[in-house]
Amino acid sequence: MKEQGILLIISGPSGSGKGTIVERLCGNEDFSLSISATTRQPRDYEKNGVHYFFHTKEEFLKMRDNMELLECAEFCGNFYGTPRKYVVEKLMEGRNVILEIEVQGALQVKKIYPDGVLVFLIPPNLEELGKRLTNRGTEEKEEINRRIHRALEELELVQEYDYVVVNDTIEQAVADVQAIVRAERMKCSRNKNIKKIFKGEMESC
Amino acid sequence: MKEQGILLIISGPSGSGKGTIVERLCGNEDFSLSISATTRQPRDYEKNGVHYFFHTKEEFLKMRDNMELLECAEFCGNFYGTPRKYVVEKLMEGRNVILEIEVQGALQVKKIYPDGVLVFLIPPNLEELGKRLTNRGTEEKEEINRRIHRALEELELVQEYDYVVVNDTIEQAVADVQAIVRAERMKCSRNKNIKKIFKGEMESC
Repeated sequence: MKEQGILLIISGPSGSGKGTIVERLCGNEDFSLSISATTRQPRDYEKNGVHYFFHTKEEFLKMRDNMELLECAEFCGNFYGTPRKYVVEKLMEGRNVILEIEVQGALQVKKIYPDGVLVFLIPPNLEELGKRLTNRGTEEKEEINRRIHRALEELELVQEYDYVVVNDTIEQAVADVQAIVRAERMKCSRNKNIKKIFKGEMESC
Repeated sequence: MKEQGILLIISGPSGSGKGTIVERLCGNEDFSLSISATTRQPRDYEKNGVHYFFHTKEEFLKMRDNMELLECAEFCGNFYGTPRKYVVEKLMEGRNVILEIEVQGALQVKKIYPDGVLVFLIPPNLEELGKRLTNRGTEEKEEINRRIHRALEELELVQEYDYVVVNDTIEQAVADVQAIVRAERMKCSRNKNIKKIFKGEMESC
Protein backbone atom coordinates (compact mmCIF):
# COMPACT_ATOMS: atom_id res chain seq x y z
CA MET A 1 0.00 0.00 0.00
CA LYS A 2 1.32 3.40 -0.97
CA GLU A 3 1.75 5.82 1.94
CA GLN A 4 -0.76 8.68 1.86
CA GLY A 5 0.44 12.21 1.04
CA ILE A 6 0.04 15.37 3.09
CA LEU A 7 -2.43 18.15 2.33
CA LEU A 8 -0.44 21.34 2.81
CA ILE A 9 -2.44 24.55 3.14
CA ILE A 10 -0.27 27.63 2.70
CA SER A 11 -1.38 31.16 3.57
CA GLY A 12 0.40 34.42 4.16
CA PRO A 13 0.11 38.14 3.47
CA SER A 14 0.80 39.44 -0.01
CA GLY A 15 4.52 40.14 -0.13
CA SER A 16 5.31 37.06 2.00
CA GLY A 17 6.62 35.19 -1.04
CA LYS A 18 3.92 32.47 -1.08
CA GLY A 19 3.74 32.29 -4.87
CA THR A 20 7.47 31.71 -5.39
CA ILE A 21 7.68 29.11 -2.64
CA VAL A 22 4.68 27.16 -3.92
CA GLU A 23 6.15 27.24 -7.44
CA ARG A 24 9.47 25.83 -6.17
CA LEU A 25 7.72 23.07 -4.21
CA CYS A 26 5.64 22.09 -7.23
CA GLY A 27 8.87 21.72 -9.21
CA ASN A 28 9.45 18.71 -6.93
CA GLU A 29 7.75 15.55 -8.14
CA ASP A 30 6.28 14.70 -4.72
CA PHE A 31 4.08 17.83 -4.74
CA SER A 32 0.95 18.69 -6.73
CA LEU A 33 -0.90 21.98 -6.74
CA SER A 34 -4.59 21.68 -6.05
CA ILE A 35 -6.87 22.74 -8.93
CA SER A 36 -9.80 25.00 -8.05
CA ALA A 37 -13.34 24.80 -9.36
CA THR A 38 -14.93 28.03 -10.58
CA THR A 39 -18.07 29.35 -12.22
CA ARG A 40 -16.28 32.14 -14.05
CA GLN A 41 -15.75 31.98 -17.82
CA PRO A 42 -12.45 30.39 -18.94
CA ARG A 43 -9.93 32.75 -20.53
CA ASP A 44 -8.60 31.89 -23.98
CA TYR A 45 -5.54 30.00 -22.79
CA GLU A 46 -7.21 28.24 -19.85
CA LYS A 47 -7.84 24.49 -20.04
CA ASN A 48 -10.46 22.63 -17.99
CA GLY A 49 -8.73 20.34 -15.46
CA VAL A 50 -5.43 22.19 -15.84
CA HIS A 51 -5.97 25.79 -14.73
CA TYR A 52 -9.42 25.29 -13.24
CA PHE A 53 -12.34 22.94 -13.27
CA PHE A 54 -15.00 25.04 -15.01
CA HIS A 55 -18.60 24.55 -13.90
CA THR A 56 -21.99 26.17 -14.28
CA LYS A 57 -23.40 27.86 -11.21
CA GLU A 58 -25.91 25.01 -10.80
CA GLU A 59 -23.20 22.35 -10.90
CA PHE A 60 -21.05 24.31 -8.48
CA LEU A 61 -23.81 24.83 -5.92
CA LYS A 62 -24.72 21.15 -6.15
CA MET A 63 -21.08 20.21 -5.42
CA ARG A 64 -21.08 22.57 -2.46
CA ASP A 65 -24.34 21.18 -1.08
CA ASN A 66 -23.06 17.61 -1.50
CA MET A 67 -19.97 18.50 0.60
CA GLU A 68 -17.75 17.90 -2.42
CA LEU A 69 -15.80 21.12 -1.79
CA LEU A 70 -13.18 21.53 0.94
CA GLU A 71 -13.92 25.28 0.96
CA CYS A 72 -15.59 27.84 -1.23
CA ALA A 73 -16.09 31.58 -1.56
CA GLU A 74 -17.65 34.16 -3.88
CA PHE A 75 -15.65 36.96 -5.53
CA CYS A 76 -17.14 39.52 -7.92
CA GLY A 77 -20.20 37.37 -8.58
CA ASN A 78 -18.24 34.20 -9.34
CA PHE A 79 -17.80 31.13 -7.14
CA TYR A 80 -14.44 29.54 -6.42
CA GLY A 81 -13.79 26.37 -4.44
CA THR A 82 -11.53 23.37 -3.86
CA PRO A 83 -12.92 20.04 -5.10
CA ARG A 84 -12.31 17.34 -2.51
CA LYS A 85 -12.17 14.55 -5.12
CA TYR A 86 -9.04 15.79 -6.95
CA VAL A 87 -7.21 16.43 -3.66
CA VAL A 88 -8.07 13.04 -2.17
CA GLU A 89 -7.07 11.19 -5.36
CA LYS A 90 -3.63 12.78 -5.35
CA LEU A 91 -3.15 12.13 -1.61
CA MET A 92 -4.05 8.46 -2.11
CA GLU A 93 -1.39 8.26 -4.83
CA GLY A 94 1.10 9.30 -2.14
CA ARG A 95 1.59 12.82 -3.47
CA ASN A 96 1.54 15.89 -1.23
CA VAL A 97 -1.05 18.41 -2.34
CA ILE A 98 -0.57 22.17 -1.93
CA LEU A 99 -3.45 24.57 -1.46
CA GLU A 100 -2.44 28.23 -1.63
CA ILE A 101 -5.35 29.99 -0.02
CA GLU A 102 -6.30 32.93 2.23
CA VAL A 103 -6.89 32.56 5.95
CA GLN A 104 -10.69 32.12 6.04
CA GLY A 105 -10.61 29.42 3.34
CA ALA A 106 -7.72 27.67 5.07
CA LEU A 107 -9.64 27.42 8.32
CA GLN A 108 -12.66 26.00 6.42
CA VAL A 109 -10.44 23.27 4.94
CA LYS A 110 -8.96 22.36 8.32
CA LYS A 111 -12.47 21.88 9.70
CA ILE A 112 -13.47 19.49 6.91
CA TYR A 113 -10.05 17.80 6.60
CA PRO A 114 -8.34 17.90 10.01
CA ASP A 115 -5.33 15.95 8.70
CA GLY A 116 -4.45 19.00 6.57
CA VAL A 117 -1.37 20.93 7.68
CA LEU A 118 -1.74 24.72 7.96
CA VAL A 119 1.40 26.72 7.23
CA PHE A 120 1.50 30.50 7.67
CA LEU A 121 4.26 32.23 5.77
CA ILE A 122 5.57 35.59 6.99
CA PRO A 123 8.29 37.99 5.89
CA PRO A 124 11.13 38.43 8.44
CA ASN A 125 9.71 41.81 9.56
CA LEU A 126 7.26 44.53 8.59
CA GLU A 127 9.93 46.72 7.06
CA GLU A 128 10.86 43.91 4.68
CA LEU A 129 7.19 43.39 3.80
CA GLY A 130 6.84 47.08 2.91
CA LYS A 131 10.04 46.90 0.87
CA ARG A 132 8.89 43.83 -1.05
CA LEU A 133 5.55 45.40 -1.87
CA THR A 134 7.27 48.65 -2.92
CA ASN A 135 9.79 46.82 -5.11
CA ARG A 136 7.01 45.29 -7.12
CA GLY A 137 6.42 48.85 -8.31
CA THR A 138 2.79 48.11 -9.03
CA GLU A 139 1.24 49.45 -5.87
CA GLU A 140 0.55 52.96 -4.57
CA LYS A 141 1.68 53.92 -1.06
CA GLU A 142 -1.90 53.85 0.21
CA GLU A 143 -2.41 50.37 -1.18
CA ILE A 144 0.85 49.21 0.45
CA ASN A 145 -0.27 50.53 3.84
CA ARG A 146 -3.64 48.83 3.36
CA ARG A 147 -1.88 45.51 2.68
CA ILE A 148 0.36 45.87 5.74
CA HIS A 149 -2.72 46.43 7.89
CA ARG A 150 -4.40 43.43 6.26
CA ALA A 151 -1.28 41.34 7.05
CA LEU A 152 -1.57 42.34 10.70
CA GLU A 153 -5.24 41.37 10.71
CA GLU A 154 -4.40 37.96 9.24
CA LEU A 155 -1.70 37.50 11.88
CA GLU A 156 -4.47 37.58 14.48
CA LEU A 157 -5.45 34.12 13.26
CA VAL A 158 -1.93 32.68 13.16
CA GLN A 159 -2.54 30.70 16.37
CA GLU A 160 -5.12 28.63 14.44
CA TYR A 161 -2.29 27.47 12.16
CA ASP A 162 0.04 24.54 12.76
CA TYR A 163 3.32 26.11 11.64
CA VAL A 164 4.76 29.53 10.96
CA VAL A 165 7.57 29.81 8.40
CA VAL A 166 9.65 32.98 8.28
CA ASN A 167 10.68 33.67 4.69
CA ASP A 168 14.17 35.11 5.16
CA THR A 169 15.38 33.54 1.92
CA ILE A 170 13.48 31.43 -0.61
CA GLU A 171 15.89 28.47 -0.23
CA GLN A 172 15.52 28.38 3.55
CA ALA A 173 11.73 28.76 3.43
CA VAL A 174 11.36 25.96 0.86
CA ALA A 175 13.59 23.69 2.97
CA ASP A 176 11.53 24.62 6.05
CA VAL A 177 8.29 23.57 4.35
CA GLN A 178 9.91 20.34 3.13
CA ALA A 179 11.04 19.57 6.70
CA ILE A 180 7.46 20.14 7.92
CA VAL A 181 6.08 17.67 5.38
CA ARG A 182 8.82 15.12 6.11
CA ALA A 183 8.10 15.38 9.87
CA GLU A 184 4.33 15.24 9.41
CA ARG A 185 4.63 11.97 7.49
CA MET A 186 6.35 10.45 10.55
CA LYS A 187 3.63 11.45 13.02
CA CYS A 188 2.35 8.45 14.97
CA SER A 189 -1.21 9.61 14.33
CA ARG A 190 -0.56 9.08 10.59
CA ASN A 191 1.15 5.69 11.06
CA LYS A 192 -1.36 3.67 13.01
CA ASN A 193 -0.74 0.58 10.88
CA ILE A 194 2.92 0.23 11.96
CA LYS A 195 2.00 -1.78 15.02
CA LYS A 196 -0.22 -4.05 12.95
CA ILE A 197 2.52 -4.65 10.38
CA PHE A 198 4.97 -5.77 13.08
CA LYS A 199 2.37 -7.89 14.83
CA GLY A 200 1.41 -9.52 11.52
CA GLU A 201 5.07 -10.34 10.86
CA MET A 202 5.40 -11.81 14.32
CA GLU A 203 2.49 -14.17 13.81
CA SER A 204 3.99 -15.44 10.58
CA CYS A 205 7.47 -15.93 12.15
CA MET B 1 16.10 36.73 22.93
CA LYS B 2 17.52 33.39 21.91
CA GLU B 3 14.92 30.93 20.59
CA GLN B 4 14.33 28.02 22.97
CA GLY B 5 15.57 24.54 22.02
CA ILE B 6 13.57 21.33 21.73
CA LEU B 7 13.63 18.50 24.27
CA LEU B 8 13.85 15.35 22.16
CA ILE B 9 13.01 12.09 23.92
CA ILE B 10 14.17 9.07 21.92
CA SER B 11 13.09 5.50 22.66
CA GLY B 12 13.13 2.29 20.72
CA PRO B 13 13.81 -1.43 21.13
CA SER B 14 17.38 -2.65 21.49
CA GLY B 15 18.64 -3.23 17.96
CA SER B 16 16.75 -0.19 16.65
CA GLY B 17 19.99 1.77 16.34
CA LYS B 18 19.16 4.44 18.96
CA GLY B 19 22.70 4.67 20.29
CA THR B 20 24.32 5.36 16.92
CA ILE B 21 21.69 7.92 15.93
CA VAL B 22 21.96 9.80 19.23
CA GLU B 23 25.76 9.82 18.87
CA ARG B 24 25.50 11.29 15.36
CA LEU B 25 23.04 13.96 16.48
CA CYS B 26 25.27 14.95 19.40
CA GLY B 27 28.12 15.43 16.94
CA ASN B 28 26.04 18.40 15.74
CA GLU B 29 26.60 21.55 17.78
CA ASP B 30 22.87 22.29 18.16
CA PHE B 31 22.31 19.12 20.19
CA SER B 32 23.30 18.22 23.77
CA LEU B 33 22.83 14.88 25.48
CA SER B 34 21.03 15.09 28.80
CA ILE B 35 23.11 14.04 31.84
CA SER B 36 21.43 11.70 34.31
CA ALA B 37 21.61 11.84 38.08
CA THR B 38 22.39 8.60 39.91
CA THR B 39 23.04 7.24 43.39
CA ARG B 40 25.41 4.54 42.17
CA GLN B 41 29.15 4.80 42.79
CA PRO B 42 31.15 6.48 40.03
CA ARG B 43 33.49 4.21 38.06
CA ASP B 44 37.17 5.17 37.84
CA TYR B 45 36.90 7.11 34.58
CA GLU B 46 33.54 8.78 35.32
CA LYS B 47 33.44 12.50 36.07
CA ASN B 48 30.67 14.27 37.97
CA GLY B 49 28.70 16.55 35.62
CA VAL B 50 30.09 14.79 32.53
CA HIS B 51 29.01 11.14 32.66
CA TYR B 52 26.50 11.52 35.52
CA PHE B 53 25.59 13.81 38.35
CA PHE B 54 26.50 11.67 41.38
CA HIS B 55 24.36 12.05 44.48
CA THR B 56 23.73 10.38 47.81
CA LYS B 57 20.43 8.59 48.17
CA GLU B 58 19.19 11.35 50.50
CA GLU B 59 20.05 14.08 47.99
CA PHE B 60 18.45 12.11 45.18
CA LEU B 61 15.18 11.47 47.01
CA LYS B 62 15.02 15.14 48.02
CA MET B 63 15.40 16.15 44.34
CA ARG B 64 12.65 13.73 43.40
CA ASP B 65 10.31 14.99 46.13
CA ASN B 66 10.99 18.61 45.09
CA MET B 67 9.96 17.76 41.50
CA GLU B 68 13.49 18.48 40.30
CA LEU B 69 13.57 15.29 38.21
CA LEU B 70 11.79 14.88 34.88
CA GLU B 71 11.64 11.13 35.50
CA CYS B 72 13.29 8.57 37.74
CA ALA B 73 13.55 4.83 38.24
CA GLU B 74 15.36 2.27 40.37
CA PHE B 75 17.61 -0.45 38.93
CA CYS B 76 19.53 -2.97 41.05
CA GLY B 77 19.16 -0.90 44.19
CA ASN B 78 20.40 2.36 42.60
CA PHE B 79 18.33 5.36 41.55
CA TYR B 80 18.62 7.03 38.15
CA GLY B 81 16.83 10.15 36.99
CA THR B 82 16.88 13.19 34.71
CA PRO B 83 17.55 16.52 36.47
CA ARG B 84 15.21 19.18 35.15
CA LYS B 85 17.67 22.03 35.85
CA TYR B 86 20.38 20.90 33.41
CA VAL B 87 17.83 20.23 30.66
CA VAL B 88 16.06 23.57 31.08
CA GLU B 89 19.35 25.52 31.12
CA LYS B 90 20.44 23.99 27.81
CA LEU B 91 17.01 24.58 26.24
CA MET B 92 17.10 28.23 27.30
CA GLU B 93 20.50 28.56 25.60
CA GLY B 94 18.71 27.51 22.39
CA ARG B 95 20.23 24.03 22.27
CA ASN B 96 18.15 20.93 21.59
CA VAL B 97 18.49 18.36 24.35
CA ILE B 98 18.34 14.61 23.71
CA LEU B 99 17.09 12.13 26.26
CA GLU B 100 17.65 8.50 25.29
CA ILE B 101 15.27 6.64 27.54
CA GLU B 102 12.96 3.63 27.73
CA VAL B 103 9.22 3.91 27.16
CA GLN B 104 7.95 4.25 30.75
CA GLY B 105 10.47 7.01 31.55
CA ALA B 106 9.67 8.80 28.30
CA LEU B 107 5.98 8.94 29.16
CA GLN B 108 6.82 10.31 32.63
CA VAL B 109 8.85 13.13 31.02
CA LYS B 110 6.06 14.01 28.60
CA LYS B 111 3.65 14.38 31.52
CA ILE B 112 5.94 16.79 33.38
CA TYR B 113 7.25 18.57 30.25
CA PRO B 114 4.51 18.44 27.58
CA ASP B 115 6.62 20.51 25.14
CA GLY B 116 8.98 17.54 24.88
CA VAL B 117 8.91 15.65 21.59
CA LEU B 118 8.63 11.86 21.79
CA VAL B 119 10.32 9.94 18.98
CA PHE B 120 10.04 6.18 18.69
CA LEU B 121 12.72 4.54 16.60
CA ILE B 122 12.04 1.20 14.91
CA PRO B 123 13.98 -1.09 12.59
CA PRO B 124 12.42 -1.50 9.10
CA ASN B 125 11.02 -4.94 10.06
CA LEU B 126 11.28 -7.72 12.62
CA GLU B 127 13.59 -9.81 10.47
CA GLU B 128 16.06 -6.93 10.37
CA LEU B 129 15.78 -6.50 14.15
CA GLY B 130 16.61 -10.17 14.68
CA LYS B 131 19.52 -9.86 12.24
CA ARG B 132 20.93 -6.78 13.99
CA LEU B 133 20.74 -8.44 17.38
CA THR B 134 22.36 -11.62 16.00
CA ASN B 135 25.16 -9.67 14.29
CA ARG B 136 26.20 -8.20 17.59
CA GLY B 137 27.21 -11.76 18.41
CA THR B 138 26.80 -11.10 22.10
CA GLU B 139 23.33 -12.53 22.58
CA GLU B 140 21.99 -16.07 22.77
CA LYS B 141 19.02 -17.07 20.61
CA GLU B 142 16.73 -17.14 23.62
CA GLU B 143 17.81 -13.64 24.64
CA ILE B 144 17.20 -12.42 21.06
CA ASN B 145 13.67 -13.84 21.07
CA ARG B 146 13.06 -12.23 24.45
CA ARG B 147 14.16 -8.86 23.07
CA ILE B 148 11.93 -9.21 20.03
CA HIS B 149 8.97 -9.90 22.29
CA ARG B 150 9.95 -6.93 24.45
CA ALA B 151 10.07 -4.75 21.29
CA LEU B 152 6.53 -5.83 20.44
CA GLU B 153 5.39 -4.95 23.96
CA GLU B 154 6.95 -1.49 23.68
CA LEU B 155 5.26 -1.01 20.31
CA GLU B 156 1.94 -1.22 22.16
CA LEU B 157 2.71 2.26 23.53
CA VAL B 158 3.82 3.80 20.23
CA GLN B 159 0.54 5.69 19.89
CA GLU B 160 1.53 7.72 22.96
CA TYR B 161 4.53 9.01 21.00
CA ASP B 162 4.60 11.99 18.64
CA TYR B 163 6.68 10.53 15.82
CA VAL B 164 7.85 7.15 14.60
CA VAL B 165 11.15 7.00 12.68
CA VAL B 166 11.98 3.88 10.67
CA ASN B 167 15.73 3.29 10.77
CA ASP B 168 16.37 1.95 7.27
CA THR B 169 19.78 3.60 7.12
CA ILE B 170 21.55 5.70 9.75
CA GLU B 171 21.86 8.71 7.40
CA GLN B 172 18.13 8.72 6.60
CA ALA B 173 17.11 8.24 10.24
CA VAL B 174 19.39 11.08 11.43
CA ALA B 175 18.00 13.37 8.70
CA ASP B 176 14.46 12.33 9.72
CA VAL B 177 15.07 13.32 13.35
CA GLN B 178 16.65 16.62 12.23
CA ALA B 179 13.56 17.35 10.09
CA ILE B 180 11.33 16.67 13.11
CA VAL B 181 13.28 19.15 15.25
CA ARG B 182 13.33 21.76 12.46
CA ALA B 183 9.56 21.41 12.01
CA GLU B 184 8.83 21.46 15.75
CA ARG B 185 10.67 24.77 16.10
CA MET B 186 8.25 26.28 13.56
CA LYS B 187 5.10 25.15 15.40
CA CYS B 188 2.78 28.09 16.07
CA SER B 189 2.34 26.83 19.64
CA ARG B 190 6.08 27.47 20.16
CA ASN B 191 6.05 30.89 18.46
CA LYS B 192 3.38 32.80 20.30
CA ASN B 193 5.51 35.95 20.39
CA ILE B 194 5.57 36.36 16.60
CA LYS B 195 2.30 38.27 16.57
CA LYS B 196 3.55 40.56 19.34
CA ILE B 197 6.81 41.28 17.53
CA PHE B 198 4.95 42.38 14.40
CA LYS B 199 2.42 44.40 16.39
CA GLY B 200 5.24 46.08 18.33
CA GLU B 201 6.94 47.03 15.08
CA MET B 202 3.71 48.45 13.75
CA GLU B 203 3.20 50.75 16.71
CA SER B 204 6.71 52.10 16.32
CA CYS B 205 6.27 52.69 12.55
